Amino acid sequence: MNKQQLVQSIRTKKNFLCVGLDTDLTKIPAHLLQEEDPIFAFNKAIIDATRDYCVSYKPNLAFYEAQGIAGWNALIKTVNYIGKGHFIILDAKRGDIGNTAEQYAKTFFETMPGDSVTIAPYMGEDAITPFLKYEDKVAIVLALTSNPGAADFQLTESNGQALYEQVLQKAASLGTTDNIMFVVGATRPAYFSKVRAIVPDHFLLVPGVGAQGGSLEEVYKYGANQEVGLIVNVSRQILFASNGTDFAVKAGEVAKDYAIQMSKLMDHA
Amino acid sequence: MNKQQLVQSIRTKKNFLCVGLDTDLTKIPAHLLQEEDPIFAFNKAIIDATRDYCVSYKPNLAFYEAQGIAGWNALIKTVNYIGKGHFIILDAKRGDIGNTAEQYAKTFFETMPGDSVTIAPYMGEDAITPFLKYEDKVAIVLALTSNPGAADFQLTESNGQALYEQVLQKAASLGTTDNIMFVVGATRPAYFSKVRAIVPDHFLLVPGVGAQGGSLEEVYKYGANQEVGLIVNVSRQILFASNGTDFAVKAGEVAKDYAIQMSKLMDHA
Repeated sequence: MNKQQLVQSIRTKKNFLCVGLDTDLTKIPAHLLQEEDPIFAFNKAIIDATRDYCVSYKPNLAFYEAQGIAGWNALIKTVNYIGKGHFIILDAKRGDIGNTAEQYAKTFFETMPGDSVTIAPYMGEDAITPFLKYEDKVAIVLALTSNPGAADFQLTESNGQALYEQVLQKAASLGTTDNIMFVVGATRPAYFSKVRAIVPDHFLLVPGVGAQGGSLEEVYKYGANQEVGLIVNVSRQILFASNGTDFAVKAGEVAKDYAIQMSKLMDHA
Repeated sequence: MNKQQLVQSIRTKKNFLCVGLDTDLTKIPAHLLQEEDPIFAFNKAIIDATRDYCVSYKPNLAFYEAQGIAGWNALIKTVNYIGKGHFIILDAKRGDIGNTAEQYAKTFFETMPGDSVTIAPYMGEDAITPFLKYEDKVAIVLALTSNPGAADFQLTESNGQALYEQVLQKAASLGTTDNIMFVVGATRPAYFSKVRAIVPDHFLLVPGVGAQGGSLEEVYKYGANQEVGLIVNVSRQILFASNGTDFAVKAGEVAKDYAIQMSKLMDHA
């Protein structure tokens, strides 16, 4: 799915929910551990239960890599199982230069393949441009993240401009609203106006709603644009809504609740 | 191998060379492509030829990930083949927060396992501390990289301090000289004095000598400390010294040349 198809899917489904697949083997229901591939068994059930209530899935690669080859196999099966009907974000936060970045782009846009990948901007332009050469694929650049440590460097100012603002400006200049999006955390709603002043038309991937305490209403109020322009990610609150045999049913209910809240926000816009 | 053993190895071998295993399938000798596992066949020959002339190996994970499961298998075989006699740097440049960073630490310090992993600091403290909980393991934090794009953000100043200097100061405060090192590129030798003013005692992983044009002499002059405190990485110039059947012999010759240059620098220190 490319960005235009994502916009269409948001309009049709009337939600902008992304289900984050942070599949932690220590948190999934115990009965699944007897499965041949517990990670995929869990993901498959979650996807079946949430597919109608979200427009995107975001596997968090750390949880797959930590399981070695078995984890990578589960990730590949998961990406294939999601299919073409959802916007697939590979949350890899890769960031390296030139010929190395080209290899990462190949990994996530050809070998895997996903629709988009998260990118760390610390190394600058060379860490971003290799991902922009792929038609219909999207680089999602970290700007202002939802964690406490975001304040360590992202908020430091230089000539009146915070680092995250410099990143928004620089990265936006390298591509288009079709091939660049930005991560902006929901835990800092006051910053959405500042973000929109620099990138009014880009999509924002928004973590931090749910377990991290960000407010969906505030994110929408300050962050939405004419195309909605938001992908709000919820991970743990959906995935681990129950740790019994009803985990998928409960996950579906939480996802549906979010989808309904989002529909209402879109109605009142 | 932990940091103290690395220091001992540098003293014994009288070099501080790291061979970067950026094993690019499009650049390795054609005859190896008939092997069952061309990446590992290439790495094995390179390791055999260079083992005596270096203290460290640095697989660049992008080149393995781009080959999917086969690449991860080759990486695991490579790490095992290197063994305990060299300092293994997994060049992954991961950077994520809290529970996700813990999964990456598990990936590279338990599942794989390497002696150290490169870390991107954009997300701040939470992206670094989970890696410091492992005894005898090292987090190597990106500070000032060797690429042109490093100037985009790393050199921007805030209150008279460049971002890379803020990163050095903050990260150094989180750990010790045993569990934190920094990436500082050889293409910016003028900055080594500034780096040493902030982190006089930490080891620096130095890319950019060789194909990227950095000077070994200048790096040593401005960057060495009492423990040498440098790991100078050379990748392409060693790996692809020849693309014929003599590739390993030629790689060994280039590595040996570097080792000899390093011995001379250490003699004159």
